[in-house]
Amino acid sequence: MLMRKIGIIGLGHVGSTVAHGLIAEGVADEYVFIDKNEGKVQAEALDFEDAKTNLANSYQITVNDYAALGDADVVISALGNIELQHNNPTHDRFVELSYNVEQVRQVAADLKQTDFSGVLVVITNPCDAIAALYQAETGYPKEKVIGTGTLLDTARMHRAVGKAFDVNPKSVAGYNLGEHGNSQFTAWSTVSLQGQPITKLAEEKGLDLAAIEQDSIVGGYTVFEGKGYTSYGIASAAIRLAKAVIQDAKVEMPVSHKRPEYGSYLSYPAVVGREGIVAYSQLDLTAEELSKLQNSADSIQSKFEEVVR
Amino acid sequence: MLMRKIGIIGLGHVGSTVAHGLIAEGVADEYVFIDKNEGKVQAEALDFEDAKTNLANSYQITVNDYAALGDADVVISALGNIELQHNNPTHDRFVELSYNVEQVRQVAADLKQTDFSGVLVVITNPCDAIAALYQAETGYPKEKVIGTGTLLDTARMHRAVGKAFDVNPKSVAGYNLGEHGNSQFTAWSTVSLQGQPITKLAEEKGLDLAAIEQDSIVGGYTVFEGKGYTSYGIASAAIRLAKAVIQDAKVEMPVSHKRPEYGSYLSYPAVVGREGIVAYSQLDLTAEELSKLQNSADSIQSKFEEVVR
Amino acid sequence: MLMRKIGIIGLGHVGSTVAHGLIAEGVADEYVFIDKNEGKVQAEALDFEDAKTNLANSYQITVNDYAALGDADVVISALGNIELQHNNPTHDRFVELSYNVEQVRQVAADLKQTDFSGVLVVITNPCDAIAALYQAETGYPKEKVIGTGTLLDTARMHRAVGKAFDVNPKSVAGYNLGEHGNSQFTAWSTVSLQGQPITKLAEEKGLDLAAIEQDSIVGGYTVFEGKGYTSYGIASAAIRLAKAVIQDAKVEMPVSHKRPEYGSYLSYPAVVGREGIVAYSQLDLTAEELSKLQNSADSIQSKFEEVVR
Amino acid sequence: MLMRKIGIIGLGHVGSTVAHGLIAEGVADEYVFIDKNEGKVQAEALDFEDAKTNLANSYQITVNDYAALGDADVVISALGNIELQHNNPTHDRFVELSYNVEQVRQVAADLKQTDFSGVLVVITNPCDAIAALYQAETGYPKEKVIGTGTLLDTARMHRAVGKAFDVNPKSVAGYNLGEHGNSQFTAWSTVSLQGQPITKLAEEKGLDLAAIEQDSIVGGYTVFEGKGYTSYGIASAAIRLAKAVIQDAKVEMPVSHKRPEYGSYLSYPAVVGREGIVAYSQLDLTAEELSKLQNSADSIQSKFEEVVR
Repeated sequence: MLMRKIGIIGLGHVGSTVAHGLIAEGVADEYVFIDKNEGKVQAEALDFEDAKTNLANSYQITVNDYAALGDADVVISALGNIELQHNNPTHDRFVELSYNVEQVRQVAADLKQTDFSGVLVVITNPCDAIAALYQAETGYPKEKVIGTGTLLDTARMHRAVGKAFDVNPKSVAGYNLGEHGNSQFTAWSTVSLQGQPITKLAEEKGLDLAAIEQDSIVGGYTVFEGKGYTSYGIASAAIRLAKAVIQDAKVEMPVSHKRPEYGSYLSYPAVVGREGIVAYSQLDLTAEELSKLQNSADSIQSKFEEVVR
Repeated sequence: MLMRKIGIIGLGHVGSTVAHGLIAEGVADEYVFIDKNEGKVQAEALDFEDAKTNLANSYQITVNDYAALGDADVVISALGNIELQHNNPTHDRFVELSYNVEQVRQVAADLKQTDFSGVLVVITNPCDAIAALYQAETGYPKEKVIGTGTLLDTARMHRAVGKAFDVNPKSVAGYNLGEHGNSQFTAWSTVSLQGQPITKLAEEKGLDLAAIEQDSIVGGYTVFEGKGYTSYGIASAAIRLAKAVIQDAKVEMPVSHKRPEYGSYLSYPAVVGREGIVAYSQLDLTAEELSKLQNSADSIQSKFEEVVR
Repeated sequence: MLMRKIGIIGLGHVGSTVAHGLIAEGVADEYVFIDKNEGKVQAEALDFEDAKTNLANSYQITVNDYAALGDADVVISALGNIELQHNNPTHDRFVELSYNVEQVRQVAADLKQTDFSGVLVVITNPCDAIAALYQAETGYPKEKVIGTGTLLDTARMHRAVGKAFDVNPKSVAGYNLGEHGNSQFTAWSTVSLQGQPITKLAEEKGLDLAAIEQDSIVGGYTVFEGKGYTSYGIASAAIRLAKAVIQDAKVEMPVSHKRPEYGSYLSYPAVVGREGIVAYSQLDLTAEELSKLQNSADSIQSKFEEVVR
Repeated sequence: MLMRKIGIIGLGHVGSTVAHGLIAEGVADEYVFIDKNEGKVQAEALDFEDAKTNLANSYQITVNDYAALGDADVVISALGNIELQHNNPTHDRFVELSYNVEQVRQVAADLKQTDFSGVLVVITNPCDAIAALYQAETGYPKEKVIGTGTLLDTARMHRAVGKAFDVNPKSVAGYNLGEHGNSQFTAWSTVSLQGQPITKLAEEKGLDLAAIEQDSIVGGYTVFEGKGYTSYGIASAAIRLAKAVIQDAKVEMPVSHKRPEYGSYLSYPAVVGREGIVAYSQLDLTAEELSKLQNSADSIQSKFEEVVR
């Protein structure tokens, strides 16, 4: 009989923070940690074991056993090499691509050896291209390979808008769309709060939406400059996505998936449940937004094609 | 009107992990982060703000404002310099002492400028001497300055015993006592599970208790070797202690406090509530254990005296 | 020093379910239960005390002590006499009015004897008129007396819409407005999901919105017929509202409050924080919806005027 | 692929409170409610659906479909007829026996038609005899049919002891053993707190242990007198037991199970995990306690034999 089981591949800053959030909330009954750095991953597992007597919920941890992923509900790819970002003035998430592509190909090959049939959540950057790569390499149904995408960037936009209006970020509607990278944009036509479109409120208030958009796109770099990586924002996004799958919640969220009408993975709101993407939302975007989205899709696709060649 | 408010001083690996655990569980309504590294602490706060729209509970974060600690319920000292441990073959937590003493004196002076009258939870190592130092420097009631002490080492002992008997660490009774350091010991006369003293079970099973004790004392170093620091075990201990204070839970736990009959801070079970240590447990230790405890107390005290001179 | 403290007045089906939800989630550190039926309220408190050793969080319960409400963060009025509804074919929440008015006047008088300065959450029916009555009798700031209002009816509408489209109710935007009673209505112009206004989706799908609206208004009666009262839906609404106050969350939700432009209490989205209603939303309603809202406001107001005379 | 799934049979006061606690904590992903009163159980389910938009976690509810129990992790029998207790001056839980036996036989027959292979948690009174009956009728492994037994009475003893010493009930060690009924007893030799056996502390403090024992045994009747039934204490016990199974927690707790050395079901500490009872504790009871336990076992067994004949 199965329990709630989550695999995490890559126990660096992000992967171990995802594990911590999941364990603190008592989400899963069993975790499988996979990392090439055996000493590091064993240390993380032992550190979590040392927490057990002081936590309310119980859990088990298995380390570096791909077979144990066979009956997992969700596997989260958090691998990456943040060091590669440390001298990257353009802030382009594609700088990690060549390193990550090799790793992802190996992970995909290893995953295919297991019976895993759950949902693969991709945090590894560049998120959209890597999600596409995982899907291509594993042959999993496209609905079951999902990138966290702009779920994080949307959270940053909600944070920035919420701060400007002194309301909770959760009370801000709307999305950042496209690439989890520089070609993304805030679809302002979808953003509203307190019953009003933000475009109207911003005008009344003299608010600079372009600055907020920029903040949501580069907000991660502020965090990155200060601490050398980002972890809590991205982990909370991945956890929310994983919980939507596990609980078959059918909640709508902007995540990276293969939109039928675009050739590529990109972030767009969709309904997420046990089977992954279970329904596709359809926004009424402006012509300008549609153009930006197409550009972002093209950007992702061309980078993906470089990768798979 | 007050909310649940927790201050964290030092947002390094441990402090930020404590913050993450508290936020993931939705423990407090307001956090105050204090760290001399302004860029780092602002980055941690922003990273947590980026999590807000994807988390169930709400919270506010104030950064580097000592005055904001005035109405905090709990302040957690998590400052330290783990780098100093990276070339420390003796695994002696006192290696950080000289660096930390200076920091703690400054923090204590700053705290005294505020109206803070809650409980000060001390993680900073060497935990017992630092707790004593905080108490001496602030003049706070000794019941309200508490070190996490062997709450963590006890968790490690529970983990090791639990593993040996295939039971949950929470179902293991008993304590590690004394210094959160090398002079501590497992008080085996207090340890039992499944209705039996462990000494009897170990004999029946041919189990090596000395090896388990050693594991619980040096377990942290295994984690340290693998990841360069420890965080989840210690954070869960500190969070449990902070929650006991906030909820006025009056739960018994082995934490570092000034035992009436010893001159020094050391870890021993006590009852923790809103006012800090609200009752003192009294174990029936063996003569050997009493002797070990006295040695540990002497060790802590002599080191503390070095410090305050 | 204060803890999170919540008072509950009336420990019937609803009040005790609110207490259970709060305790299960570990929301408050102290509860004050007030009920004229001394045996009943003592039994509820004892039953919750019997749960303590098996629950993760700790809490304290004080019974029938108005003075203990003085430093409460939130007081929830859950009093009522559901028996009066048992032969009420019109399903009019005003049938309880005369009974409840007398009780509320007494509670308000007793509250005024305390130092209570937090937020008063009103569940007692008819919710809008009773909230108005509490505000008038206590003289508390109007921002600090809030009825659960159509937060529950909106939840029912979200449930019905979510079911029709197989998405999570949380992923349905929009509100039921006006009276928590028969004159309320679903403001369909505010309802959307999956990126589309529901009016468009309903047309495409041949969905009968009037039936869904009716379901959200009378859904409570289906529950009432089956179990003799309703409890879980209303309790979750009240708990969400109470948490928004306690956490100073500044989240937007449709609750009953005194809208500036109407003379009366009625439900309309507003931003809720520590100080109660901290900002007023402004919907772009259709002319028909505005007319319905005015009718609902008039209906509430005329009933309220009957009461206070 | 399976989710966490819990069946509840009998949605009266206790069953619906169990459901509420589980849902409030977000324990399971799917619930199956079974009750002969179709109107009542549909109303409970709808009431919980009305809570969904205001709760953090998601869940699904299936009503009156035994087949849906086939892949449940835990099924909880909460059926009963509390009305039969309302004129029962002897407080004997066996007064419900004849009614419940018939119901249980039907439920067992229906369960056997499903593929259910999880753990059956029995709350239905008289708990020990009914657990035995379920096990006999279903033929399930005896380790997988567990009664809540004195987990509740132990909680009451912890509550009473905790109150006497002003410590948290969770910080009281020890058990009530035997029948979840009048022949049970507190095994005082197992009870300790703050490092001392309670017998010693009670002597020092002049505490009447017999009165505390009586309180723990009849405490439920005080609740029963005041509110007509008990719910929160028993629900929290059942939920803790269910979570131990779901999380494969291997925690020790006093629950009703078939002890090898007695012929009957009775409550005694045991280790509970995914496979039900996974290890048997062995207390060092006094001769007097052993005699009381034998008496209690005999009492349960003779009543059970009446039932199955």
